[in-house]
Amino acid sequence: MDTTHLNEFSIHTIGYLHSPFKDKFAVPRQPGLIEGDLGEIELLPPWNRIEALQGLDGFSHIWVMFIFHQAIKPVEQWRPTVRPPREGAKRQGVFATRSPYRPNPIGMSVMKYHGWEKRGKKLFIKVSGIDIIDQTPVIDIKPYLPYADTIEGATGGFAQSAPQSCDHIQVTISPNSQQALNKAKQQYPQFEALLRSTLTHNPRPVHFGNIEKRSHFSVQLYQYQIEWLLEDDNIQVIQIKPI
Amino acid sequence: MDTTHLNEFSIHTIGYLHSPFKDKFAVPRQPGLIEGDLGEIELLPPWNRIEALQGLDGFSHIWVMFIFHQAIKPVEQWRPTVRPPREGAKRQGVFATRSPYRPNPIGMSVMKYHGWEKRGKKLFIKVSGIDIIDQTPVIDIKPYLPYADTIEGATGGFAQSAPQSCDHIQVTISPNSQQALNKAKQQYPQFEALLRSTLTHNPRPVHFGNIEKRSHFSVQLYQYQIEWLLEDDNIQVIQIKPI
Repeated sequence: MDTTHLNEFSIHTIGYLHSPFKDKFAVPRQPGLIEGDLGEIELLPPWNRIEALQGLDGFSHIWVMFIFHQAIKPVEQWRPTVRPPREGAKRQGVFATRSPYRPNPIGMSVMKYHGWEKRGKKLFIKVSGIDIIDQTPVIDIKPYLPYADTIEGATGGFAQSAPQSCDHIQVTISPNSQQALNKAKQQYPQFEALLRSTLTHNPRPVHFGNIEKRSHFSVQLYQYQIEWLLEDDNIQVIQIKPI
Repeated sequence: MDTTHLNEFSIHTIGYLHSPFKDKFAVPRQPGLIEGDLGEIELLPPWNRIEALQGLDGFSHIWVMFIFHQAIKPVEQWRPTVRPPREGAKRQGVFATRSPYRPNPIGMSVMKYHGWEKRGKKLFIKVSGIDIIDQTPVIDIKPYLPYADTIEGATGGFAQSAPQSCDHIQVTISPNSQQALNKAKQQYPQFEALLRSTLTHNPRPVHFGNIEKRSHFSVQLYQYQIEWLLEDDNIQVIQIKPI
């Protein structure tokens, strides 16, 4: 087979991720950091067949391959270096990072697998450990194979350790917000855990720089807009309202 | 952004893998099984820029994302189940396997990273632990992040452990073949290790079934055709000839 002309391929969306993270500022910088981040992958026809999931129940984790749909650029605009999403990080080669800005906008993320559910004609795969945004197009699902994917003693360059949670940050929720939160928890029982975990993982756009410069932030989780104030090591949630 | 119409994406080949495995029967069933399997990813223009690799040298492993170019089928022909490449394995859902036959022909493989090399205008990334065939189109390279990708206690369903090497198999090499091998080793010093490791990892097409039924096999490594006989627990290499 002459492969020299196989330079372009067509890839189909097989499903969409339903994630609590509605905007990129809330998305954790790696999977598995945030508590309460349950989501679902809705498989589209013709791929919404239960048989396609046969055998998956023995696995604890899956790889989800997806399109960085908000980062698609023409090939001509590609840049060989990117700035990793850690504050203060210097530019790195795109192939040394997991940045969304890359020659092909393909991402991979390992998620916890929580089984599947059929609702009407729709087929959903339940996941947690999500680090991608709501409505992300999914292009493949593969099992996580511990014997192949878990590499003892692998070294991680400039990214040796996970981004840290700011444990010293205190989150308080205003009475009005707590009321709104309690209501939302009827639909999303894990909402409060998700909110607190998200805020202590510092969901500020990196380019805002020094946190003192800005004290009022907002972020979307599920269909709620959340507003909060940061002062020293305290976060106060001042509003939770449906969008 | 309305994502409901983002159902098809165009993906570009950014490079090709140069692997010792010229046919699929020689390819190990997972990365990291075979000794001496050195290869290179040749980056194509405009992606053959050294800057794109900046920072990669701190990593021990990389993810290589590629196209299963020999398994591309029209969407209409997709099947929800596949037969995993283990002898005797029963059919499983495609999303519970890493089979090449899947809705999108995208593969991922973790490889050891051995640095890069510029030769003339060409840029090569050196790798080992290869489980894909020569000339495979590569579509992305990402660092292996131990803190995110190494999952303690993950469970692996029907694929708990790696395919085993058949340690009891004795490989002998005929005098003529040893001569040819010595010559080939001038170009590929690791050739003998690769050959012995490949043969003891049982590179027979699964559908041949019971090994007693067939005793004469051949396989391609680099640009050599290798013929060998199997009798009981002995493999005898009878010919190594350039193609």
